[in-house]
Amino acid sequence: MTQLPDPGPDDPASSEPASRDAADPIRVGVLGARGKVGREVCRAVSAADDTVLVAEVDADGDLDSLLAGGAEVVVDFTHPDVVMDNLRFCVDHGIHSVVGTTGFDDDRLATLRGWLAEAPGTGCLVAPNFSIGAILMMRFAALAAPHVESVEIVEVHHPDKADAPSGTAQRTARLVAEARRAAGRGPGPDATTTSLPGARGADVDGVPVHAVRLRGAVAHQEVVLGGLGETLTIRHDSMDRVGFTPGVLVGVRTVGSRPGLTVGLEEFLDL
Amino acid sequence: MTQLPDPGPDDPASSEPASRDAADPIRVGVLGARGKVGREVCRAVSAADDTVLVAEVDADGDLDSLLAGGAEVVVDFTHPDVVMDNLRFCVDHGIHSVVGTTGFDDDRLATLRGWLAEAPGTGCLVAPNFSIGAILMMRFAALAAPHVESVEIVEVHHPDKADAPSGTAQRTARLVAEARRAAGRGPGPDATTTSLPGARGADVDGVPVHAVRLRGAVAHQEVVLGGLGETLTIRHDSMDRVGFTPGVLVGVRTVGSRPGLTVGLEEFLDL
Amino acid sequence: MTQLPDPGPDDPASSEPASRDAADPIRVGVLGARGKVGREVCRAVSAADDTVLVAEVDADGDLDSLLAGGAEVVVDFTHPDVVMDNLRFCVDHGIHSVVGTTGFDDDRLATLRGWLAEAPGTGCLVAPNFSIGAILMMRFAALAAPHVESVEIVEVHHPDKADAPSGTAQRTARLVAEARRAAGRGPGPDATTTSLPGARGADVDGVPVHAVRLRGAVAHQEVVLGGLGETLTIRHDSMDRVGFTPGVLVGVRTVGSRPGLTVGLEEFLDL
Amino acid sequence: MTQLPDPGPDDPASSEPASRDAADPIRVGVLGARGKVGREVCRAVSAADDTVLVAEVDADGDLDSLLAGGAEVVVDFTHPDVVMDNLRFCVDHGIHSVVGTTGFDDDRLATLRGWLAEAPGTGCLVAPNFSIGAILMMRFAALAAPHVESVEIVEVHHPDKADAPSGTAQRTARLVAEARRAAGRGPGPDATTTSLPGARGADVDGVPVHAVRLRGAVAHQEVVLGGLGETLTIRHDSMDRVGFTPGVLVGVRTVGSRPGLTVGLEEFLDL
Repeated sequence: MTQLPDPGPDDPASSEPASRDAADPIRVGVLGARGKVGREVCRAVSAADDTVLVAEVDADGDLDSLLAGGAEVVVDFTHPDVVMDNLRFCVDHGIHSVVGTTGFDDDRLATLRGWLAEAPGTGCLVAPNFSIGAILMMRFAALAAPHVESVEIVEVHHPDKADAPSGTAQRTARLVAEARRAAGRGPGPDATTTSLPGARGADVDGVPVHAVRLRGAVAHQEVVLGGLGETLTIRHDSMDRVGFTPGVLVGVRTVGSRPGLTVGLEEFLDL
Repeated sequence: MTQLPDPGPDDPASSEPASRDAADPIRVGVLGARGKVGREVCRAVSAADDTVLVAEVDADGDLDSLLAGGAEVVVDFTHPDVVMDNLRFCVDHGIHSVVGTTGFDDDRLATLRGWLAEAPGTGCLVAPNFSIGAILMMRFAALAAPHVESVEIVEVHHPDKADAPSGTAQRTARLVAEARRAAGRGPGPDATTTSLPGARGADVDGVPVHAVRLRGAVAHQEVVLGGLGETLTIRHDSMDRVGFTPGVLVGVRTVGSRPGLTVGLEEFLDL
Repeated sequence: MTQLPDPGPDDPASSEPASRDAADPIRVGVLGARGKVGREVCRAVSAADDTVLVAEVDADGDLDSLLAGGAEVVVDFTHPDVVMDNLRFCVDHGIHSVVGTTGFDDDRLATLRGWLAEAPGTGCLVAPNFSIGAILMMRFAALAAPHVESVEIVEVHHPDKADAPSGTAQRTARLVAEARRAAGRGPGPDATTTSLPGARGADVDGVPVHAVRLRGAVAHQEVVLGGLGETLTIRHDSMDRVGFTPGVLVGVRTVGSRPGLTVGLEEFLDL
Repeated sequence: MTQLPDPGPDDPASSEPASRDAADPIRVGVLGARGKVGREVCRAVSAADDTVLVAEVDADGDLDSLLAGGAEVVVDFTHPDVVMDNLRFCVDHGIHSVVGTTGFDDDRLATLRGWLAEAPGTGCLVAPNFSIGAILMMRFAALAAPHVESVEIVEVHHPDKADAPSGTAQRTARLVAEARRAAGRGPGPDATTTSLPGARGADVDGVPVHAVRLRGAVAHQEVVLGGLGETLTIRHDSMDRVGFTPGVLVGVRTVGSRPGLTVGLEEFLDL
């Protein structure tokens, strides 16, 4: 069939995976469509072959346009103050959601899980990071960490960044530390007896993390791992903010077949 | 208990996992003990806390010393001409084996599988590569390949190497290609219209592979992967031949709990 | 003094280095001011403390506005068809020039040299590349090349690039080859006997050059050099097109004190 | 001529550059010939086409064997306690020297300079580092430092190293800082307001230095430099201790044509 389905605002059921033809593009609504990130999402959804942008809603926009457009999946990059209302609306109307908005603590996740339990078939992905490269880097670092003696992290960012080390570096260090503890691995060997203050980096859960601030850099991170006679380096270079859009599209394509709440895009990557 | 068990040559049963005390070091025999590689294995087995070297057999040595020493696990870095006889002996005596000797084709693996089927509880690991770093690199490359647009491989070796690209690079390329095919991914984008011959590397199953030959280098490989706005690099640096010994020890520690034939150390790494 | 000098269009002499106060910002006119590159130049000139933008001229603009603004230095990113007329005008009025426009062959350079010979005190910089990082990379590669056994080049660009290897990589290779010849060094050692076609890269004047095409990459190049037991890597990462503006500013600040024709920004970097 | 000259112990003049035939191999004596380093020097001198090993002297050896062998150049990797006596002997007999022994303070260098002033035509090179790669890295870092906004250093060593950062990293940082001061450049930009202790590395003369300790690593250092939109990385990888021998040979080949005292091999590299 070549004709798009005509869902109509009063027929949200037509957006359910069960009734959709795999050859149809996925109908996507974007919330926060005028924000920096939302704009890129709109562009990416329009450019992809298998998705179609059916609604763009901004700060004072009307969620009903999602229904009018027949949105099957909503992408939400809005604000912690409004995201829960947005998601309540989506769940009520059986619209799947892919959420990059921040501010999700355990309470919010529990609430969301409760709503979804009453809407079987509806999926929601909440993810703090949509960079596929960053997710792979963190995952591989955690997978490799139990098999080597040493792990350290070096991140490099532009010099206008306020925090050091980066949140991603700290998160990576914690995943590495956890994986090593689970495998009964202690901290890496280090015979340093004479050191200038700071030379050996910050200690994040036992993993040394070094932060470089460099004009010309964007956002880069290297996890270096070492065993007898060999080293392994996993490096992620983020050159451009658009790097998150392929991850959003993975979310959009997958969320319809994963009912309930999913936290973290890595769950959709089959690693 | 601090005393080593005295299994005696006529009591091979004592080497079975079920009856061994986890606190006892694993009793290891090394075949090919005077070769370059075997020597390093002997050193590593002796140095580790949880293994003990109980037999060193070389070219014209006697396999019965394995029994005399009460070997539970044998490490075989010998020669394709003798390895099958060695393994026949091991399987017959319920000794697990970790094999780095080359020359295993499908026929040999089938034969070996047959022998092991009749010796329940006995395990054998045949692996072409014991470098944990190289194995992780290949595994991560294959895991990441379906999630990016582009994958290329750059390997760097000392200039005395006869083949280009390296066997590891070719193997990585094939694993990457296979993973992409399985995910329905085609070759990476490439708008090159004007090119000097060789500039874009060798084509290995659709994956471009570049081989650098550099004095001072040992054995290095980088898998570079790229998606919109970001790149991921997985790099392995092999600095020293001893880099394979931690992998051999993983084999020695694990093979006793994995009856039957295992091909490839990656199977023991829980990736 | 806080007031800008008022040179007036009929007093170009006031722009000569001898008469200018070092504390005054340099008065800069930009030709090609509405082009992609020219726009960035205008922004950079306006942003810097020691330069002031006094004229912006585009395709159908009037060069007299340079005089009206009292331009001491002109930056020309225009078109091969008009650049010579622009420079004739500048030389006639004693205005120094920094030129990134392409199309300068030996004839044009000779003509320009002739004009400048008759305008003592006036300087002109013609440069094919204003990236300071790229210039340093090429210079260091040439300086190091005679002191090592092996040199190869790996460049990585976005996959929409039409030529492989890049012009910069080819130019680097030629500089390396020249430096090695001058030092009596032959090609690097290479024992390869079995090779897949293309594996060892393109041969540019005896230097192997490898071109990687990767989504997410911008423009990157690595010169790898190796001697017994050690390697040296010189890597340039160009992340953003604005990377050429610091080089243009170096040109603007220096050209007034270098009368005559200078080819290549490297001449101003005191390497 | 194919016959080696027969200088005889009483004819040191024959070793002077003026009288030697460029086609003759340079006659080299090694002091400290049985030490780890001296042994490698002996091997390298014997292996090179243009040098010949004519004397090997160890701790309790006799310096007269230098004369008996007709040494033109001596390489000294001995001990601070004996090196001055060795050099007194060499200068007295018109033998050039290449010295890697440590412990040269200003007093010793002044003494040495005095001796050489009275032995015109005799050269002596005292160098703390014979790794050509490390010397090039430091030199390039200093050359580039004035032309960029940011410079930081990341060094990676095996985990048995006692000091952090390495001496080479600290020396590089000081050279970078000096070059920036001379060019009127301040410290790199850094907007960090929230930092874990140590994250931003050690401050060496205003240059952040980060020390990674990694099993499998040998000795590696990266100087990262950044300007608007681009970065430059200069990386040195030392894989093997023999990496210093090409530098010693450069010293041996050059010292005869550089009378007087030279401090630092970089002086012989024409950078």
